Amino acid sequence: MARWTLYTAPGTCALATHIALREANADVEIVRLDFGANQQQSAAYLKLNPKGRVPALATEDGVLTENVALLAYIAQRHPQAQLAPLDDAFAFAKMQEFNSYLASTMHVAHAHKRRGARWADDPAAHESMRAKVPQTMTACAAQIESQIAGPWVLGERYSVADSYCFTIASWLEGDAVDVSPFPRLLALRERVAARPAVQRALAEAA
Amino acid sequence: MARWTLYTAPGTCALATHIALREANADVEIVRLDFGANQQQSAAYLKLNPKGRVPALATEDGVLTENVALLAYIAQRHPQAQLAPLDDAFAFAKMQEFNSYLASTMHVAHAHKRRGARWADDPAAHESMRAKVPQTMTACAAQIESQIAGPWVLGERYSVADSYCFTIASWLEGDAVDVSPFPRLLALRERVAARPAVQRALAEAA
Repeated sequence: MARWTLYTAPGTCALATHIALREANADVEIVRLDFGANQQQSAAYLKLNPKGRVPALATEDGVLTENVALLAYIAQRHPQAQLAPLDDAFAFAKMQEFNSYLASTMHVAHAHKRRGARWADDPAAHESMRAKVPQTMTACAAQIESQIAGPWVLGERYSVADSYCFTIASWLEGDAVDVSPFPRLLALRERVAARPAVQRALAEAA
Repeated sequence: MARWTLYTAPGTCALATHIALREANADVEIVRLDFGANQQQSAAYLKLNPKGRVPALATEDGVLTENVALLAYIAQRHPQAQLAPLDDAFAFAKMQEFNSYLASTMHVAHAHKRRGARWADDPAAHESMRAKVPQTMTACAAQIESQIAGPWVLGERYSVADSYCFTIASWLEGDAVDVSPFPRLLALRERVAARPAVQRALAEAA
């Protein structure tokens, strides 16, 4: 397997894929984009990833984007790391269901705080979106809380769903969510944060 | 394999999973919810799927939601139907990348037309969201157009990505998108619509 390159940026959802790569002990170079300088919209990066977002993973076969796809791919390419229930289609689907909810519902809810311009032009509409984020993110946190089997998302085995859950759930306090009603989520965050691969990824992403 | 039950509703993204089940020749009962009567929020349905959405698939192992997870699961459980590149991790990831983009970006863009109350309370904000849908859906259609390898999404082989692409792309004209700049997408829609499994699913979903 040739060396891969992960394109990431501090504070983004790309941390989920970054953690998974370190858990897998993948041979990967980490490239941090400066969103403040709008590097994700540079001509060079858009050539690599026309979406102008992170994460993007350059592999020997081509570039991959979207956390849901990347997380399953990293687990499949590094089976010895046991990052997904690869031999159980239903358990794998439950993992993908969890990840897809984070991508298409919870991350989207969060994005309405600062990225409202994606969906409306009126500044007053952006303000109205921002005002609702604590409510929508609280509802998402409650949904996630009900899905965590414990101690990890899928139960006894750590998986890439835990790195993704950790990443998105780290945004809750910043989104003015009272996290005290979500003890399983809080315990999961602490458990994930204590893992060496996670500490390494956090240090590299900062 | 015990008989499955798909919960769907006319005009929704659940059609993607419905088509995949018919392509797989799965043993499945189709249950249509009446969104006009708010059946997806009934106590009985919420017990089955607390998200109150469709699709939901009741299997012998439990209930599954989220198209991205369901499409991969149906393909994995029916390998003889060859609905996904199950033996090629990178090709499978490209399929998942495509599906995840539909779920977390394109479907989300579309939802801002009628579901703005998910993300803001102010009716003026909903109006501002509605006004931008033709622009965001055009951008999504351009992104999809660039990803279709042809003749199918992934190239020579039909996959569950085609049923999902067909479903979401069928919303474009209703979202006031000029589809003429997207010939590959238009050809793909026609090609998918002509398949017997798709005609059967469309008749059952109506």
